[in-house]
Amino acid sequence: MKELESFASHGGFQKVFSHYSEVNKCEMKFAIFIPSMDIKKEFSVVWYLSGLTCSHANVMEKGEYRKRASELGLAIICPDTSPRGEKVPDDKDDWQFGSGAGFYIDATEYPYSENYNMFSYISEELPRLVKSNFSLNMNKQGIMGHSMGGHGALILALSFPERYNSCSAFAPIVQPTTTDWSIKAYEKYLGKDEKTWRKYDATRLIEDGASFSNILVDQGKKDPFLKNRLRPERLEEICKKYNQPLKLRMHNNYDHSYYFISTFMNDHLDWHNDKINN
Amino acid sequence: MKELESFASHGGFQKVFSHYSEVNKCEMKFAIFIPSMDIKKEFSVVWYLSGLTCSHANVMEKGEYRKRASELGLAIICPDTSPRGEKVPDDKDDWQFGSGAGFYIDATEYPYSENYNMFSYISEELPRLVKSNFSLNMNKQGIMGHSMGGHGALILALSFPERYNSCSAFAPIVQPTTTDWSIKAYEKYLGKDEKTWRKYDATRLIEDGASFSNILVDQGKKDPFLKNRLRPERLEEICKKYNQPLKLRMHNNYDHSYYFISTFMNDHLDWHNDKINN
Repeated sequence: MKELESFASHGGFQKVFSHYSEVNKCEMKFAIFIPSMDIKKEFSVVWYLSGLTCSHANVMEKGEYRKRASELGLAIICPDTSPRGEKVPDDKDDWQFGSGAGFYIDATEYPYSENYNMFSYISEELPRLVKSNFSLNMNKQGIMGHSMGGHGALILALSFPERYNSCSAFAPIVQPTTTDWSIKAYEKYLGKDEKTWRKYDATRLIEDGASFSNILVDQGKKDPFLKNRLRPERLEEICKKYNQPLKLRMHNNYDHSYYFISTFMNDHLDWHNDKINN
Repeated sequence: MKELESFASHGGFQKVFSHYSEVNKCEMKFAIFIPSMDIKKEFSVVWYLSGLTCSHANVMEKGEYRKRASELGLAIICPDTSPRGEKVPDDKDDWQFGSGAGFYIDATEYPYSENYNMFSYISEELPRLVKSNFSLNMNKQGIMGHSMGGHGALILALSFPERYNSCSAFAPIVQPTTTDWSIKAYEKYLGKDEKTWRKYDATRLIEDGASFSNILVDQGKKDPFLKNRLRPERLEEICKKYNQPLKLRMHNNYDHSYYFISTFMNDHLDWHNDKINN
């Protein structure tokens, strides 16, 4: 693991590391905010998964999470959104597939199965790495994300309800198996048999019996992707049907940007801190 | 004036406009945060002047000012750092001169005098424009800035102590007339007669009799420009000698970046709000 950047900020340190990922077979970067300059302390962890086209850097620069995370003593880990590099298969003309569009799944189709294993990376490899390198309490973990990363947070929490204490999402893709900006990627990563897609779709997981303590979702009403691609009402409907607790908040005027995310970031960190510690 | 961007954020609107500047003879952009969605309210104003190589966008994305500005009811205006455009003389190989390096002065040397008139732009033209387009109380104004913009905030407050209620700076260039990253630009903009440079140097202004109610300066001790280029001790010394109030805070571990600025942004907004309203 190699430290690429380190900045004092809000009483802690914002850092960026790179390391070789065994599951993705490439160098990966991630950002971590250590919420104190007293590095002997042990911190709870909140994962932030980013959306399509983003890397670890977008939320690190624009997410405005450090002040409250420092107050609450939460380490914030922001992974990249896909494997990257010259040897990683990609389609540079398609922003909804390949680099920046890993969809937090483990690909089964060759050649993508060689590198696109973000589900195992986020749930297994990266937690092991950060646990062995930082003073983190891995019994106190929350997970959140934005858009494609909101989808990631939802499927990971529903897949490992015993591991994560809390889950939240900003404008998540709630049903990737039925919307155009993920179907093409799922076909390439997972093949045409849609039954294999269900474990990477929050609504299908709930239909198939998964559940999680409670989920917070914030959604802007001026989000240009709201009606055709995000469709939070589908999550709401399935949560109701299967008695899955959901706190869905719709916000007038807000869009899909970091101006929206940063506005509600403190609420999400408070949500995680509350669930982690109670 | 043309609206280029508008984002709901932290209970208000972050907007970007462009307009034709008469004094700079080019199109200029600026960002403005309206701290409420109730646009009938009247807001106090805090100007934020950015540093070398920056535009209006850097602090808008990374400055983390909106939450507190919204709580305090402060409109935040972030101008660009220089004139720009094909017809504006520039030196693309020199980041300390030309585009992104207007130094908030009015140039007297041809051809720069045609466009590089940021002092008049920030003190006269842009205030007139925003006053006539937004609901702002121009009797309640503060000014702050970072690095070259900290220099800008200092010289503007010292030049117009009756206009600004408050002044603060992050890692300001306190004595541009004696440091290598501004001397070359001052020679080109103002000519070789160093007497004409004094009105664009905070320490010289104070020596020549200018004063301001009180000034807040934050400076990181790990700032790579601290020793040879920023040298806050020079401002401290001259302020002491001339009884100019100065609150200078030195911070362990912090550098010159927006990770530093955003950490102390709330303190600065509280400082301005306090001076503006008391």
